This record gives sequence, structure tokens and C-alpha cells, in this order.
Amino acid sequence: MHIKTYMQELGIAARQSSRVLARAASAVKNNALLAIAAQLNDSRHKLLAANALDMENGRTNGLDAALLDRLELNDERIDGMIEGLKQVAALQDPVGEITDLGFRPSGIQLGKMRVPLGVIGIIYESRPNVTIDAASLCLKSGNATILRGGSEAILSNQAIAACIALGLTDAGLPETAVQVVNTTDRDAVGELITMANHVDIIVPRGGKSLIERISADARVPVIKHLDGNCHVYIDDHADLQKAVTIADNAKTHRYGVCNAMESLLIAESVAQRILPQLAEIYTQKNVELRGCQKSREIIDSIIEATEQDWGEEYLAPILSIKIVSGIDEAIAHITQYSSKHTESIVTEDFDRGRRFIAEVDSSSVMINASTRFADGFEYGLGAEIGISTDKIHARGPVGLEGLTSQKWIVFGDGQIRE
Amino acid sequence: MHIKTYMQELGIAARQSSRVLARAASAVKNNALLAIAAQLNDSRHKLLAANALDMENGRTNGLDAALLDRLELNDERIDGMIEGLKQVAALQDPVGEITDLGFRPSGIQLGKMRVPLGVIGIIYESRPNVTIDAASLCLKSGNATILRGGSEAILSNQAIAACIALGLTDAGLPETAVQVVNTTDRDAVGELITMANHVDIIVPRGGKSLIERISADARVPVIKHLDGNCHVYIDDHADLQKAVTIADNAKTHRYGVCNAMESLLIAESVAQRILPQLAEIYTQKNVELRGCQKSREIIDSIIEATEQDWGEEYLAPILSIKIVSGIDEAIAHITQYSSKHTESIVTEDFDRGRRFIAEVDSSSVMINASTRFADGFEYGLGAEIGISTDKIHARGPVGLEGLTSQKWIVFGDGQIRE
Repeated sequence: MHIKTYMQELGIAARQSSRVLARAASAVKNNALLAIAAQLNDSRHKLLAANALDMENGRTNGLDAALLDRLELNDERIDGMIEGLKQVAALQDPVGEITDLGFRPSGIQLGKMRVPLGVIGIIYESRPNVTIDAASLCLKSGNATILRGGSEAILSNQAIAACIALGLTDAGLPETAVQVVNTTDRDAVGELITMANHVDIIVPRGGKSLIERISADARVPVIKHLDGNCHVYIDDHADLQKAVTIADNAKTHRYGVCNAMESLLIAESVAQRILPQLAEIYTQKNVELRGCQKSREIIDSIIEATEQDWGEEYLAPILSIKIVSGIDEAIAHITQYSSKHTESIVTEDFDRGRRFIAEVDSSSVMINASTRFADGFEYGLGAEIGISTDKIHARGPVGLEGLTSQKWIVFGDGQIRE
Repeated sequence: MHIKTYMQELGIAARQSSRVLARAASAVKNNALLAIAAQLNDSRHKLLAANALDMENGRTNGLDAALLDRLELNDERIDGMIEGLKQVAALQDPVGEITDLGFRPSGIQLGKMRVPLGVIGIIYESRPNVTIDAASLCLKSGNATILRGGSEAILSNQAIAACIALGLTDAGLPETAVQVVNTTDRDAVGELITMANHVDIIVPRGGKSLIERISADARVPVIKHLDGNCHVYIDDHADLQKAVTIADNAKTHRYGVCNAMESLLIAESVAQRILPQLAEIYTQKNVELRGCQKSREIIDSIIEATEQDWGEEYLAPILSIKIVSGIDEAIAHITQYSSKHTESIVTEDFDRGRRFIAEVDSSSVMINASTRFADGFEYGLGAEIGISTDKIHARGPVGLEGLTSQKWIVFGDGQIRE
């Protein structure tokens, strides 16, 4: 198979299907989602058999336990995919929404209409459930999709792709509306991210190194999700009870997630009162503390933080702690080290809250709430394709709306420019 | 001068100033705009002297008359720049606008706040007035700017830059909020469009070849304005009087603009009635007509159109004409040949209007209005930095809002994730 030719063919077919999808009624798209769910349910044996082969190959090739776990399909995970499809079918269709429709002095009536982006390329690791997850969001938002999953999951993804194709056909949509790249050749990725004629946007899902590699080589715009080095700043004017609850929750609710707090900043004037209480909670939960000199003068079990710690996304029970003189130093520290994902201030002071919200340049900025809320479900997007750390196009949790664009529409009754 | 080091220094200074600008009050930004206007007014002699040297060099280097015309400054053009600054000062500041603020089931209050993008790089040809035009929009939207104008205008741009620096200082803003690249070395452009750490977005202003070249090499997102091959489709159900007026205005109101009609599609059933009338108007105005076989059977003075004509942006008194069987063929033709800038249908039929609006994938889609309305001023944006033919981020006329992003904001009173 000549990879470039093959990928170009996928691209051309995707572009054609995208035109059909762009004008497909919500009911048709929902029917397709539910038909795919039914196909998955009917094909459990095939899916599990294909996945068993992937798992066997994975073991032979020495995949570690964590990767094998993510690769594995079982009945519960198939149920999860089916449930996901039903949830996306239940979401409101963003396509066709018209807003800001009003008259201009010339007499034209001007508004904006929400439309699909066109063709979306998704690149992800060996988690077969992402195939359904990504395909369903793209389909609902009226976009054609080209999916390139990790090579270890190729047989599982092909089995899932067969269900998707049948479901699309059932609903009267072209089966090329969702295409799974049918080769493990790495050149396919290189082609996918550079064929700007056929692909409108790339969404990589996976670790930071995957995303950096793709962004460096892409000629198509990329919705990037780099790291989440999130901060909580406890201000002089914090309610100390709220501060303890938030700093506990933001760190310890889940460790391996991008919206977990990785660095805690505490105003000097309240550090003596609050740090011992927090250190006790963290120590009980086996969170390793790495701090600045001043924090170590208060709690001697805190390990000395290095420069590297301030920029680190641990994704683990480790926390860096810095005592700062006040809000100015807190904002300066965040500006220097944050990955611009999510930051929260704990304060009862109106002015400081306003300043923090205005001056901290992150995709989510919070007052008196846990960073863990930065999430598509918590924000009411229904589902998310990722969390963007970009400023262009989509920022923060990206749901259906982030997979669309707006065009200008003009209604007239014969107006011309004078 | 080592270009890479020099550009990196500009970038670092721009990033620092961007933080000051991002939190600058509207009044301060407006004061700066008006102070720059005052400086321009006080520096007329210096501006004209610097420009005279550029013009002399331009003549020596054999610049053609059109380029010399665009390069020239005179009192009227300086008045135009001053007036532009005052108009931008009068526009509403988009920064800080909070929308969609509402409560989520968790009790957090979630909204979106409009914020500047950060640092904007503008690359343009030898038109000194663009220096003020671009700088003022970026400044008002709270962004730091690095401006790289055409080398023929370097002395004029330096003189304008001196006025900008004084105006910024007068208003208490850092003078590095707007920086003009002080070298004609082409490597400066290469550096500007690849230093993604320091620059958030690039806006090239100029011809298609400039924009294509920059887009191909950029590692920073680019707001692209490629060609405007705009279509008007006169439907079977058109009001013929509106059709004539719109097809006349869209072509002949101005020829050298991106929102002029370049291709006219006419439904077969009305072609006999409407084409002779239109051909007479166009012929009187010396518009050259190039058409399909069927159009030439109606009007024999129409020249035979080649395949290339359908994709061409003439920017001249030339029009391509195609007789189509109806709306399906019209949409198919537009899908194949349009540059996705602006298209208009003339019809009295509700369903066909709706279909055209939904199915034509262009940045502006119109019913019964001239394509000439696709313009930042007509759309009420107050001013525009360009018209984007991209789908990502900003689409169509780009005003202050297109130079901003939105971040999520969360207000709580101690909420944590359960």
C-alpha cells in the first residue's frame, strides 16, 4: 500500500462525506449514533475476539501493565462506549444555531450561523474506546472524521470501525463519514497532519510528547492539550476553612488528572496558621511535599523544592509549595511557571478576586473553587474531546462547540452598497 | 546586528508589555491612541521628510507607480491616520466582557471572559498607514504588537514608530507595547513567524502570494486572507429587478476589492430574460464577459471561459458567467470553485434561501444582498484587521473581537469536586 495515496484517498472521501454530514438533520445524526450503539451491542463477540488478539500481540511485544489495561476491552467497557453514544445523541445539536441576528443601518439583517469545521483528524494512543468517543462527538457536530489510533489496537479499532460503518449505513449516511486508518505505518500520521486540503483540524489525544511531536510537524491547525501545572493561591484574606477544603480537594481528589493542583502558593501572613493543618492532611494521604525555604521553616518534613519542581506536572501524589509575599508575587509566579490550564485563588477580598481573574492568563481562572472543576462535564458541555491549552479557536474544555465554526449570514431584500 | 537575537529581544519585550496591556484600563488605552494621534499631528514635517527619502529610494530602485502611490504619505493621508486612531479610540473595548455567567448544578458560577491574545505579529507591504491601522487595533484590544512593514517604507515606519512610542509613554504605557522591526533583513520575518514562545498570532496583510508564503513557513497560527472569488447565483425564483441591481452592484461598485463578484451563476430558466439586460449594463461599463457555451448562445459577444476562469479572482472589470440547471448545480459549482469568501443567492423562494445559507461553506453567505456588504464597517465591527478565509478562530471580517480570546471564569464559595 502506498501510504500517501491511501491517505489522500481517505482525505478526499472525508471531504465529500463532510458535505453530506454538514447538512444532515439532527435526527439523522442521532439515528446513526444509536445505530452504531446497536451494532456494538450485537458485535460483542467480534469486538472481544479482535481485542484478545491485540492483547496477545501486546503481551508478546512486552507492553507494560498500564498500557495493556488501556488496550483491553471487556463487556463493561463496551457498555461504556454504548452509553457514551447515547449520551452524545441526547446532546443538543450545535449546528445551524443562528445568533446575533440584527439589522444594520444599510437594511441588511446580519447574523452568525454555527457550522461544522469539515474534516477532523484524531490521533490517539492504544485505547479503543477513544475511537467511539471521538467519532461520536465529530459525527454529532456534523464533521467527517479520520481516526488514527495506536498501532497496538489496530484489530480492535478495525472491529469498531466495522460497527461504525454499519451504523452509518443504517442511518443513510455515507460510511466514509467516519474512517479508521487501516495501517500501522507511521507515515500515515505524517500525511494526515499535513494534508491541509483535506483536513481542517487535528485533535491529538494522549501524552504531552505525542502532542508536541504532532504540533511540531503539523501543517493543519492542532487543538493542543499540553500539561496542566495548576496552582491554588491562598491569599491573606482567605477564609481558612475554604482554603483547607479546596487545597485538599484540588490535590487529593484524583492525582493523575490534568486539572489537579500541582503547586500551592500561600500568602506569608497566613502560612503559619494554615500550612501545619494542610501538611497533616497531605501526610496522612501520603502526598510528598516539596517546598521553598520558608515553607520548610514551618514544616520540617517538607523536602527542598528545586527550580524544576515549579514547572512540573507531577500527575502523582507530590505537591510543590511556595510561600509568597502576597497576590503580586503569586501572580508573577503563576505567570512564570503555569502551563495556563487552571488556577484558583482563595480569598474573601473583592479586589483581589477581580485582579486574579483579570490578570491570570489561563484557560480557567477560579475564585474559591477547586481546580478539579475544569472539565467538560462540570462545565455542562456534555462531553469533551479534550482540554485546549491554546488561546486560538477553542480554549479550555472543548465540547461540540469547539468542533464548529461560525459563518456570517446576511438576509436582504435587494440591498446594494451605495 | 544578529537577526535572531534582535527578534528574540523584541519578542521578550513584547511578551512583558503584553501583560501590562492586558490589564490596562480602557481609558488608558484610549489616551494612548489619542496621544499617538497628537504626536502624528505634531510630527508632520518629520513624517513627510522620512517618507520623501523612502520615495526617492523607491524611484531609484524602480518601484512602479502603483507601489509608489501606496508608499506615499501626504497631509491627507496623515489626517486619515489621525482620524483612524480617533475612531478606534471611540470603539467599545472588548476586553473584560463577561458572558454566559450562570450557575452549574455543583453550585459554581461559570462564565466566559474576553481577554487579549497576547502578542500579535503583523507583516505587511510598503503602506505606512497600515502601521497605524494595525497598531491601533492591537493596542485597543490589549495586545502587544510587533510590526514588520515592507522594506521600501522603513524610514516612514521608523518615523511613525517614534510617534507611537511617544504616545504610549505619554499615556503611561510601555513603549515596547508596539514595536516596529528596525531592519529590512528578510530573516526577521522568518524569525517573527516561528518564535511561538513570544508571538501568539500572525496577521499578514497583502497579496495572496505574501500570505501563502508566510502560512507555509509559520509555526505561529496565522489569520489568513487568501482570495475572494465571490459568486452571485440568480435563482429561477429570483425577483429579476433585485437580481439585476445586485449583480450590477456586486461587480461594478468597485473592481479591485476582495468582496466583488467574480463569477455570476444564472438559472437556465431565467437566463434568456435576464442575461441580455445584464450584458448591456456590463458592456456599458466596459466589463469583459467570459462565459460558458450556453451564455454565449444568448449573448454572442461573451468570450469563451476556460476552466481557469472559474477559479479566478480577477480584481478587475472581468466577469465569468455560467448558466446552471438550478440550485443544485449552483451549489456544486460554488463548492468546487469558490475561495469560500462570500456568496449570495437572489431568490424569493424560502426553501432555496435556507438551503443556500446552510449548504454554502463560505465566510459570508447572503440572500438578496450584494456581496460588497462583506466588510468590517458594514458589519458594524468598526474597523477590521482583515477578512479571514480560515474556519479556525476568526472567520470573515476580523475586528477587535478576532484579536481576543475567551477564558473560562469560575466563582465559588468553597466548592469542591465530590
